[in-house]
Amino acid sequence: MAKAKARREELREKLIEAAEKTIVAQGHAALKARALAEEVGCALGAIYTVFPDLAALILAVNARSFALLGTILSREAEAAAAAGGGPRAIANRTLIALANGYLDFAANHGGRWHALFDFRLPDGQELPAEHLRQQEALFQHLETPLAALQPALPPSERALLARSLFSAAHGMVLLGLEGKLVQLPLPYLREQIALVVSAMGRGLESA
Amino acid sequence: MAKAKARREELREKLIEAAEKTIVAQGHAALKARALAEEVGCALGAIYTVFPDLAALILAVNARSFALLGTILSREAEAAAAAGGGPRAIANRTLIALANGYLDFAANHGGRWHALFDFRLPDGQELPAEHLRQQEALFQHLETPLAALQPALPPSERALLARSLFSAAHGMVLLGLEGKLVQLPLPYLREQIALVVSAMGRGLESA
Repeated sequence: MAKAKARREELREKLIEAAEKTIVAQGHAALKARALAEEVGCALGAIYTVFPDLAALILAVNARSFALLGTILSREAEAAAAAGGGPRAIANRTLIALANGYLDFAANHGGRWHALFDFRLPDGQELPAEHLRQQEALFQHLETPLAALQPALPPSERALLARSLFSAAHGMVLLGLEGKLVQLPLPYLREQIALVVSAMGRGLESA
Repeated sequence: MAKAKARREELREKLIEAAEKTIVAQGHAALKARALAEEVGCALGAIYTVFPDLAALILAVNARSFALLGTILSREAEAAAAAGGGPRAIANRTLIALANGYLDFAANHGGRWHALFDFRLPDGQELPAEHLRQQEALFQHLETPLAALQPALPPSERALLARSLFSAAHGMVLLGLEGKLVQLPLPYLREQIALVVSAMGRGLESA
């Protein structure tokens, strides 16, 4: 029994790694069960002994991508805090650093990024609780500086505002990297994001 | 000759109207040449005597959607100006009104909205100059209040900032309407957009 469980666990790991490789290199739309089975050297049907469907496998890779994004954002927030100053100066700097950390993630890990925000679960399936918990943890990075800028804001409104600010940053990253409205080299896009996010930060502070 | 030209013009109009109906009801991905030909009562090949391909037909519908969005934004900007106050108060109010006008357009004209920002031209084709001119005209709505908030900003930087602000608003509209991060009824989404855009406006003013 223990041996069968270990074998299943090993197959699960191998499949996640193979799927991760495909998502990083070609995007989640390129994921095919047959190619995965060949890659890890298992029977096609064996995939479905560890994952109910490919969607579950994509979510498993997304959990890793969330963790990677979390590491990048933590590093950005720590660097912003280490640069010193009062709590509001740190908060403003942190918001800019987080937005640009998100830009870096999207620019350097395009396949992961698209799988995180483009992938739709099949109708009727709900996101697993773990996925929502990871999303929460990421927004926590934004809520910390917001609490410094608007200490009187109730936590539920702060949570909402964090998601709105994230959406605004996401829009700049999305259209910026697409280069549809204007073709900006990355350093200039980074400056534009800093310009807009710092205006938001100052505006929130003065509210 | 004149008669043949009039017939071509008539067919062109009919095709744009049929395509517009499909895009509004089902989205641009649902556009099929055969169904269009049936709808307007022409031979399949006749479509290609007035449009080089379906992409050109989608662009013709997009030109109408741009015009509709322009009308909505003009109305919003006029109402914001009519509410009175100093130039900066008007500028701040205008930015919020424009963002929420864009939200209304996206919420009420989903098919048109997706065709405007999701549709990709086939590789190698460039957007027609008229399309870029219409895009320019829309951003002009944003540049006017920005000029009031930051009079010293050079026009080229103002043009860039207008596109960045638009991208931020687009992100809030996109993720807000998708309801992926948080499920907000439209009036609350409207409030969130006003909150973030007014913070941006205040922040830009104080820069």
